[in-house]
Amino acid sequence: MKTLTVNLGDRSYPIFIGKGLLGQAELVLPHVHGEQVMVVTNKTIAPLYLKKTLDMFRSHQCHHLILPDGEVYKNLEVLNQLFDELLLNKCDRNTTLVALGGGVIGDLTGFAAACYQRGVPFIQIPTTLLAQVDSSVGGKTGVNHAQGKNMIGAFHQPNCVIADTDTLDTLDDRELSAGLAEVIKYGLLGNLEFVHWLEDNMNDLLARNPQALAFAIEVSCREKAAIVAEDEREHGKRALLNLGHTFGHAIETGVGYGKWLHGEAVGTGMLMAADLSHRLGWITDKDLHRVDNLIDRAQLPTRSPASLDEHKFFELMTRDKKAKAGHIRLVLLKKMGQAVLCDDYDDALLQQTLRDHHAIAKQYGLRV
Amino acid sequence: MKTLTVNLGDRSYPIFIGKGLLGQAELVLPHVHGEQVMVVTNKTIAPLYLKKTLDMFRSHQCHHLILPDGEVYKNLEVLNQLFDELLLNKCDRNTTLVALGGGVIGDLTGFAAACYQRGVPFIQIPTTLLAQVDSSVGGKTGVNHAQGKNMIGAFHQPNCVIADTDTLDTLDDRELSAGLAEVIKYGLLGNLEFVHWLEDNMNDLLARNPQALAFAIEVSCREKAAIVAEDEREHGKRALLNLGHTFGHAIETGVGYGKWLHGEAVGTGMLMAADLSHRLGWITDKDLHRVDNLIDRAQLPTRSPASLDEHKFFELMTRDKKAKAGHIRLVLLKKMGQAVLCDDYDDALLQQTLRDHHAIAKQYGLRV
Repeated sequence: MKTLTVNLGDRSYPIFIGKGLLGQAELVLPHVHGEQVMVVTNKTIAPLYLKKTLDMFRSHQCHHLILPDGEVYKNLEVLNQLFDELLLNKCDRNTTLVALGGGVIGDLTGFAAACYQRGVPFIQIPTTLLAQVDSSVGGKTGVNHAQGKNMIGAFHQPNCVIADTDTLDTLDDRELSAGLAEVIKYGLLGNLEFVHWLEDNMNDLLARNPQALAFAIEVSCREKAAIVAEDEREHGKRALLNLGHTFGHAIETGVGYGKWLHGEAVGTGMLMAADLSHRLGWITDKDLHRVDNLIDRAQLPTRSPASLDEHKFFELMTRDKKAKAGHIRLVLLKKMGQAVLCDDYDDALLQQTLRDHHAIAKQYGLRV
Repeated sequence: MKTLTVNLGDRSYPIFIGKGLLGQAELVLPHVHGEQVMVVTNKTIAPLYLKKTLDMFRSHQCHHLILPDGEVYKNLEVLNQLFDELLLNKCDRNTTLVALGGGVIGDLTGFAAACYQRGVPFIQIPTTLLAQVDSSVGGKTGVNHAQGKNMIGAFHQPNCVIADTDTLDTLDDRELSAGLAEVIKYGLLGNLEFVHWLEDNMNDLLARNPQALAFAIEVSCREKAAIVAEDEREHGKRALLNLGHTFGHAIETGVGYGKWLHGEAVGTGMLMAADLSHRLGWITDKDLHRVDNLIDRAQLPTRSPASLDEHKFFELMTRDKKAKAGHIRLVLLKKMGQAVLCDDYDDALLQQTLRDHHAIAKQYGLRV
């Protein structure tokens, strides 16, 4: 087992990474302060891991709630169901919420923990690769709004995170690839050596080699933790973590939540960001092909949805949280392995990128 | 004009108190950082003060939203309407929200500011006595849930507060009295000298003497600011500000939000807390009569609703945020002018208090 610490002063917390961690009560119990615990999970995860999770908290008054599975349920209405459940069970302000599942469960439960009685403790047990490498670090929580992803939320740090690599055995291939998109992101945005490693080890990752997965999770969490420790509330450097996300969120919102997985949209989004960076003369032809190749080898889509033309795509991008009064700020690649936040790019090149991607998508459809 | 500062490190902010402050753009503009402003108000306040408020922000891209008036609208559904409006207007994460109205508008708008894009700045312009002395200090924001008041919320400090005493001229008598309940609270919980002052000046306050009102607002805000500066997130001393609130919230929830004004419920709640403190032998007969007299003279109800018997009342109290795993923590008067947070009182005395208040209420009805 590896233990990483996210350094945030009095909000610091440990991430435990390894095999067979679920069920080890001694890891979580020091992080439960009150007498009540509410485990939140979904219909897919409950039959697999709920019992093992509840067992860890059997010394407490432990409730649970099983939500439907999917990004489409990450909204205020479902959040309110969770509040109903907490109130029905008379959960007090020392109740610990436990998020058992992927990013949707983590974001929604974390936001509930941020708001219930103005803030209660929570523990993350991410069961997807994406949640283990991304959602579990940094305290971003929230729900979607019909008009934009993650528009409503809070910064609320967990008390601890348990990333049990065994839970990835039950992940379907598409979800595994979606997680790899975020893993690739940590290479592209700031760790060129890790890009090389990914190029050398992509087949092992797809084959779910446990050592390869554990290493990829550890590096990703470490990269993210370092950035978050420097800039918890995203006043600067943390924005780099959004590489591929402004394009990706437009895809997710445009096709309707849940049709594309978040990681899939981020994969295509990173390729579009690399494409624009290439048009700006910042990365070489060869670099762009490396990005394309890595995303393709991770079995992620490399083409945007044919249903979104450049006008619609652009309109969706202007709603992004990073947009400033209508102008879109983008995370682009200044060079391979080095992302920058940028708002002085040539707008015509962005339009061209969107137009060309739409033309290719319309002609050939998705490559996956 | 008086300027008080709430000292909270990098979240410190000024409260401006005085006549004719609304319209003085130089007070608010230094606290607006982005280009967009969204003023949130209600149907009662809009015809009176919206134009004057919008004028202050005419150098900005300024939107506004007029909500219905009343506690019953302080919920997740109305909050979502505000999010709709922000997204429709493409408000970015530097948008400043401005709450123009009473406590309901302040709490709801403040919570929206806490959650929209994970947090945007906001300015409070409280237009009721209650909001000026209470909701505007301390950063508690939130909405109600059908099963409990303020169950969903966040701590989010405003950038500045404008308490213009002129806005109290348009307040109806019942709202003025409701505000006086919170003013009395600051005397009872920690400032005996102020209790004397209130006994001497209650008639002036009811007659809306501007000097008397300004003094009462200033003392109340100063008392609250001192407590909040010591304990921003209510781990200890801040709980004293809830004197009368556990009883009061039970009344508000029990009769249905909006039937009793918050201040009215707090007034009766303080009397019930004083009654229990008297039964515990902590305050004298004379003290209890002083509390009763002060609340009565402020034209606040001194009897609980006849519709809530002691069982229902108790059940509602156990849902309070200060309840710990079903046991009710109460703020009581250790002596006159000194409140304490208490959970080792004799439960039978609480039951007696509830029973006696219900018996009197059933026999005589409301005294007001």
